[in-house]
Amino acid sequence: MGEPCFDIAHLGHVEVLTDKFEESLDFFTRVYGLKLSAREGDCAYLRAWDDYEFHTLKLTASETTGVGHIGYRVSSEAALARRVVAIEASGYSVHGWVDGDAGHGRAFRFEDPFGHVFEIYWETRKFEATGDDVPALKNMSSRFHGVGACPRRLDHLNLLASDVTEFRNFMQTCLGSRVTEQIRLDNGRLGGCWFTINNKTYDLACTEEHGKGANRLHHVTYAADQREDILRAADIFLENGVHIETGPHKHGIQGTFFLYVWEPAGNRVELANAGARLILQPDWETITWTETERKKGQAWGLKTIETFHTHGTPPGETNGGT
Amino acid sequence: MGEPCFDIAHLGHVEVLTDKFEESLDFFTRVYGLKLSAREGDCAYLRAWDDYEFHTLKLTASETTGVGHIGYRVSSEAALARRVVAIEASGYSVHGWVDGDAGHGRAFRFEDPFGHVFEIYWETRKFEATGDDVPALKNMSSRFHGVGACPRRLDHLNLLASDVTEFRNFMQTCLGSRVTEQIRLDNGRLGGCWFTINNKTYDLACTEEHGKGANRLHHVTYAADQREDILRAADIFLENGVHIETGPHKHGIQGTFFLYVWEPAGNRVELANAGARLILQPDWETITWTETERKKGQAWGLKTIETFHTHGTPPGETNGGT
Amino acid sequence: MGEPCFDIAHLGHVEVLTDKFEESLDFFTRVYGLKLSAREGDCAYLRAWDDYEFHTLKLTASETTGVGHIGYRVSSEAALARRVVAIEASGYSVHGWVDGDAGHGRAFRFEDPFGHVFEIYWETRKFEATGDDVPALKNMSSRFHGVGACPRRLDHLNLLASDVTEFRNFMQTCLGSRVTEQIRLDNGRLGGCWFTINNKTYDLACTEEHGKGANRLHHVTYAADQREDILRAADIFLENGVHIETGPHKHGIQGTFFLYVWEPAGNRVELANAGARLILQPDWETITWTETERKKGQAWGLKTIETFHTHGTPPGETNGGT
Amino acid sequence: MGEPCFDIAHLGHVEVLTDKFEESLDFFTRVYGLKLSAREGDCAYLRAWDDYEFHTLKLTASETTGVGHIGYRVSSEAALARRVVAIEASGYSVHGWVDGDAGHGRAFRFEDPFGHVFEIYWETRKFEATGDDVPALKNMSSRFHGVGACPRRLDHLNLLASDVTEFRNFMQTCLGSRVTEQIRLDNGRLGGCWFTINNKTYDLACTEEHGKGANRLHHVTYAADQREDILRAADIFLENGVHIETGPHKHGIQGTFFLYVWEPAGNRVELANAGARLILQPDWETITWTETERKKGQAWGLKTIETFHTHGTPPGETNGGT
Repeated sequence: MGEPCFDIAHLGHVEVLTDKFEESLDFFTRVYGLKLSAREGDCAYLRAWDDYEFHTLKLTASETTGVGHIGYRVSSEAALARRVVAIEASGYSVHGWVDGDAGHGRAFRFEDPFGHVFEIYWETRKFEATGDDVPALKNMSSRFHGVGACPRRLDHLNLLASDVTEFRNFMQTCLGSRVTEQIRLDNGRLGGCWFTINNKTYDLACTEEHGKGANRLHHVTYAADQREDILRAADIFLENGVHIETGPHKHGIQGTFFLYVWEPAGNRVELANAGARLILQPDWETITWTETERKKGQAWGLKTIETFHTHGTPPGETNGGT
Repeated sequence: MGEPCFDIAHLGHVEVLTDKFEESLDFFTRVYGLKLSAREGDCAYLRAWDDYEFHTLKLTASETTGVGHIGYRVSSEAALARRVVAIEASGYSVHGWVDGDAGHGRAFRFEDPFGHVFEIYWETRKFEATGDDVPALKNMSSRFHGVGACPRRLDHLNLLASDVTEFRNFMQTCLGSRVTEQIRLDNGRLGGCWFTINNKTYDLACTEEHGKGANRLHHVTYAADQREDILRAADIFLENGVHIETGPHKHGIQGTFFLYVWEPAGNRVELANAGARLILQPDWETITWTETERKKGQAWGLKTIETFHTHGTPPGETNGGT
Repeated sequence: MGEPCFDIAHLGHVEVLTDKFEESLDFFTRVYGLKLSAREGDCAYLRAWDDYEFHTLKLTASETTGVGHIGYRVSSEAALARRVVAIEASGYSVHGWVDGDAGHGRAFRFEDPFGHVFEIYWETRKFEATGDDVPALKNMSSRFHGVGACPRRLDHLNLLASDVTEFRNFMQTCLGSRVTEQIRLDNGRLGGCWFTINNKTYDLACTEEHGKGANRLHHVTYAADQREDILRAADIFLENGVHIETGPHKHGIQGTFFLYVWEPAGNRVELANAGARLILQPDWETITWTETERKKGQAWGLKTIETFHTHGTPPGETNGGT
Repeated sequence: MGEPCFDIAHLGHVEVLTDKFEESLDFFTRVYGLKLSAREGDCAYLRAWDDYEFHTLKLTASETTGVGHIGYRVSSEAALARRVVAIEASGYSVHGWVDGDAGHGRAFRFEDPFGHVFEIYWETRKFEATGDDVPALKNMSSRFHGVGACPRRLDHLNLLASDVTEFRNFMQTCLGSRVTEQIRLDNGRLGGCWFTINNKTYDLACTEEHGKGANRLHHVTYAADQREDILRAADIFLENGVHIETGPHKHGIQGTFFLYVWEPAGNRVELANAGARLILQPDWETITWTETERKKGQAWGLKTIETFHTHGTPPGETNGGT
């Protein structure tokens, strides 16, 4: 193995599609606790209070649900150029350069074999807090407003793919991602894979799609600081009639303390604490979990709820999803 | 500014000197909750339960206290070579190659202008848990044993230097560190500086030395996962007669939730939660705090205790230290 | 000592005076997180989300600050009659029966030797949640709304008296209170006294007044469930420009995890976790702390801030208070 | 309804039977974190660090598992006399006076219709901390030793009865308990009932037995201060190979944050935070949950695990239990 790649800096933003735009927007702002940076036409640009960019969630009104595109910010202008060369040489589908959204400059778009659209960009629009939104401490991106679940920053997303091994190739080739953990099924296939391009334990995960279609989203996650924030959020979701799918509990894989809910349009949204554990080790060796190990349930024995294996957005072709 | 440097992977270990070896060792293992990897002659090699290397703290019996040396692990063999070239070209004092301690391979040593000895290394000895120490979850480095304060990993250290600006030059030149935050005094000097070489907000800090000598240590810090772990640790320190200097409270700078105690030989040891906030932003601009801002106290108004400005180890030349 | 007295059930409500009514009301509702039950003329009736009575805080516009009156609810109609007999026989100043405020039935009023007005009552108005305020779980008094610090219930208050021993006599005679802890100064006087009439460790405390007047309030406290709620509240106070006097930290006396702020009119308000420790023991023996023990500071060594000994409301006669 | 009864002060201790005495004792001391007060013959007397009595758990070697007897401490000598009169008049089975165990004076024993033996007593042996066990703060019963899950105090137990309504009569008649919450099944029977005799929300619960025998125990519970303590305990149980049955999660009924494990002999043991919510209200009206409401699962939607409805100790007659 050669030197680790540092061209990609971090997951930048996720575009989420909703067919219940106003309800989704109300959920993400009032209940989940993101802040609205701007609203333009059919889109809302949202960010967590300590996200430094203008937006980390682009919520787009649509006839369907799921993920629009995924943006990663690179480490420098030169790194962007290097990545573009690598992606163009990869053979994966390339969309090419697009003007950036409200929150960043030009971006280079490409696509994984399962229909998910990615982009990478360097120039960005840093959020500038003004007025009541100026934080008390100058090292925070904006005021901790204490609304709803109130996560600190975008953390990761999880995509569904019918061939996780192929998806892994895509991530390693195009983004230079490292695989921190993975599930090896008894049939030899990969059941899931967790990727990182920095010191986070993961910024993107992929789990196996079971025939419900292409280009599906499993979930998007923001990070809260403390496990107590997540327990508190469970009460807030409960009081606001949000569908709590499972949690709070601790994942065996990655050790993340999690809580999964479905926003009004059905997209799965997680709140997690994802900072306590870091991968600082440059020569980290992928942890591989067997199917038997996974069947033990989550860290403290909670059996994974059935919908977690079937529900994704959009709902899917064959049976309308869960 | 050019591209960020990724040659250094992370702070690897700190050697702490003690003139009360047995008492210090008892503190670090039974009360602070590190694990003993090995004891060789006058040294004990210690690690937190999720540190992946053989040791992160080398405790050395000595006639004095303070820091012996500081080790950083690089990102690859090639990165090591690049750093050696840069350090040799820097003009800073070079000790050259040494055999590694019990926990790692050969290391390249050099020194800052204030007498602190640094080393960088690539080859390391990864900790292999055996027997009762094998963790329940295979993605953990060893068993969470729940002893004492029980931090997860080495986090950072703080050194004293009579010229923080000069120290900053050293860190930028030799390690390629970024400066995430700093204090600018009214007299124009830097009062403190916080450095990182990865996504942590800092792995080393430097604050101004006020005439008590050279090569002094302000504190060494391990990270706990939750703020509650730190509150709980305060009770454990209290029940074990450990001198609690200040905290738990939240730093304004870096936002760290902290607790400072003095181990039996007088070295200041911190327990902090340092993972919630990350610096993922590749073009982070240094936050500069003014002297006036610092005088407001910590995040929630706690005035910084006087000993925090005066006590370091070894105690110092002029008055025996605090 | 005879059998314990159970005539008084719990602290019912506190009337707080403010000369900045709108600002105080904004603080108590938006930042501290109480709910407004009603507003009548110069008064607002407030309660925490799990308080079962119509109000636990009566906020009254006034030319001054401090405490208006303190209400305790009795255990039964018969217990009320017994207490009235005891109070009338006590020789303490009796105001007699008054119609209750918006939140309860008739009340019997009396006064301690330092000018604080107390009342006891049986008939009360239980809060009936309607509409959006109906909680998700039927064993909660109203919806957990997650606004501001969002405490669960009224906990206790602290009054100043120039003779704590005399105040202790008053509490034992009139309310049948138990003394759970107290401070004995080197001069033989009581420096402070903590009282309870149920299984809480205290519902009222009294500390020594140092010549700033009569009828003064030291602070009023609501209880939050978790220490993390209090750490989180500190950030909320910080972001809202509230004066944080001291904390979060842990009291040595009573072991309470505390945070003290001043509401806009200057009344000291605490947020504390006061449920973990209970006094279930029927023959509890008063814990007496010496002056030397107190000088060690709070549980983890924090020195008590000077204003804590001097600031009360109203500000006081001689120097306008702190 | 007449005046509330205050004759019983609190749940005092529970005798738990084990057919794996040494393993159970190791679990309760090293993993669960109780302290050993004494060991006499086939019994061990245990207490949590802040329990004021000599013991709150009597662990007795036996050929079976389950509960030996349940002790409640009364409020005074006179209250003891009153209760004895009431119990003798009740028609329930009376065992009469017995000498107390190591931890208390003479006790009056009686039995519920389902075979559980109760006792009430006044004279007790208060724990006197000595040597290393003396706490840093004099208002604590002994040193916070930080071993294992390390709960603060005995909280409650849960018994199985084939007729919960009849059990409720027993508790009201013999102990003067209040019913704070209950489950009314669609068939009209009570499915469960929660009792208190002080300001705790419950000190004893009873749930319906489904034909597995008499005199069975569902679980015994100690209280930890913070929810974080319970999350941390889950890791400790995991690392020590303890069977985690379900949790951490939050009960809808009573709002308790819970974690259930089975100690080595199979007795279910809970760790819960049970102090945040108190029943201070003297005229509390019983909350009644319907079968439909219960089927929604716990507070955040977790479905109750099947073994929770079937497993008890001893295992039961028909099928050896779960």
